[in-house]
Amino acid sequence: MSGTLSQGSSPARLTLWEEENFQGRRCELMSECSSILELSGFRRVRSVKVESGAWVGFEYPDFQGQQFILEKGDYPRSTAWSGSSGYRTDQLLSFRPLLCANHSDSRVTLYEGENFQGCKFELSDDYPSLPAMGWASKDVGSLKVTSGAWVGYQYPGFRGYQYVLEQDRHSGEFRKYSEFGTQAHTNQLQSIRRVQH
Amino acid sequence: MSGTLSQGSSPARLTLWEEENFQGRRCELMSECSSILELSGFRRVRSVKVESGAWVGFEYPDFQGQQFILEKGDYPRSTAWSGSSGYRTDQLLSFRPLLCANHSDSRVTLYEGENFQGCKFELSDDYPSLPAMGWASKDVGSLKVTSGAWVGYQYPGFRGYQYVLEQDRHSGEFRKYSEFGTQAHTNQLQSIRRVQH
Repeated sequence: MSGTLSQGSSPARLTLWEEENFQGRRCELMSECSSILELSGFRRVRSVKVESGAWVGFEYPDFQGQQFILEKGDYPRSTAWSGSSGYRTDQLLSFRPLLCANHSDSRVTLYEGENFQGCKFELSDDYPSLPAMGWASKDVGSLKVTSGAWVGYQYPGFRGYQYVLEQDRHSGEFRKYSEFGTQAHTNQLQSIRRVQH
Repeated sequence: MSGTLSQGSSPARLTLWEEENFQGRRCELMSECSSILELSGFRRVRSVKVESGAWVGFEYPDFQGQQFILEKGDYPRSTAWSGSSGYRTDQLLSFRPLLCANHSDSRVTLYEGENFQGCKFELSDDYPSLPAMGWASKDVGSLKVTSGAWVGYQYPGFRGYQYVLEQDRHSGEFRKYSEFGTQAHTNQLQSIRRVQH
């Protein structure tokens, strides 16, 4: 965990606290951290402020488990970053900066089937409801991110499990739903949006 | 509760079930309903499918309490529409269609102070992070919706309390945070997005 990662003029920076509402001991990150409890000596993370950049937080160490997108702003309690996933969790044990977000130029293509087969749809905007856009299935079989970073969600309105999809990981190619993330028990994807840096 | 309301080619339609996963008794709505338990005889609502249009669901009858935006798609359990608000609720007891959504032409102006005073910012896109956009405060004092419908959220990433803001209600003008909604205990607003019909 060394050095800084920057996009635009500011290095990525995130602060986290052991208690809610930014109380108790604090720890600042400027690069990825595979185990925050080891690094900080905390028992848990209860609040977060993202000062700059966009980050991905993970339920478990080593970037495993559910993913939670963390854009700039204040997260005074776990519900602020988790919303409600398929099952309740308030753990946030590893973090990494997300480097390729580009809110004004993001593109992703969704495919009905695995391995980029079947009907496809290229998106460059946010869709809180893929069904309302005309995507007939409740699933996405595979997808390609050609620019920027996206978050897909299990339910409409950006709710449920989050799948963080970056152009600079996996070469932007996700051939089947098991590549969306380690917690992907389902390929149900009903909303999707761009990440904002 | 009579008649149908339409936008574009399809009348607004929503189905709700007494149990999760679309099980048990069901009830279909095509217009507003101020008390779903009275109408349906159900003890509660545990799952929803929006077949067409966009709707607003409310925690209490008579369109009171927390607001939950419901765009087209499947909501198999309460966490699918509520995410996590400031406090846990799984009640959804009144509903109305939202008629003025226009995903491709939505405009809102945010003001730092009440009564449209202070710094302002006109938006026509979604912002999962108003801080990242340059909005310095964690609050919004007042706002004007000039077209479409928007949802403001307490936390970044479209999390926390939801404030549904429509051009055709209040003449699109919300002069102070108590006008954002009946449950607005705070004017903290860190993300905002367009509603999709």
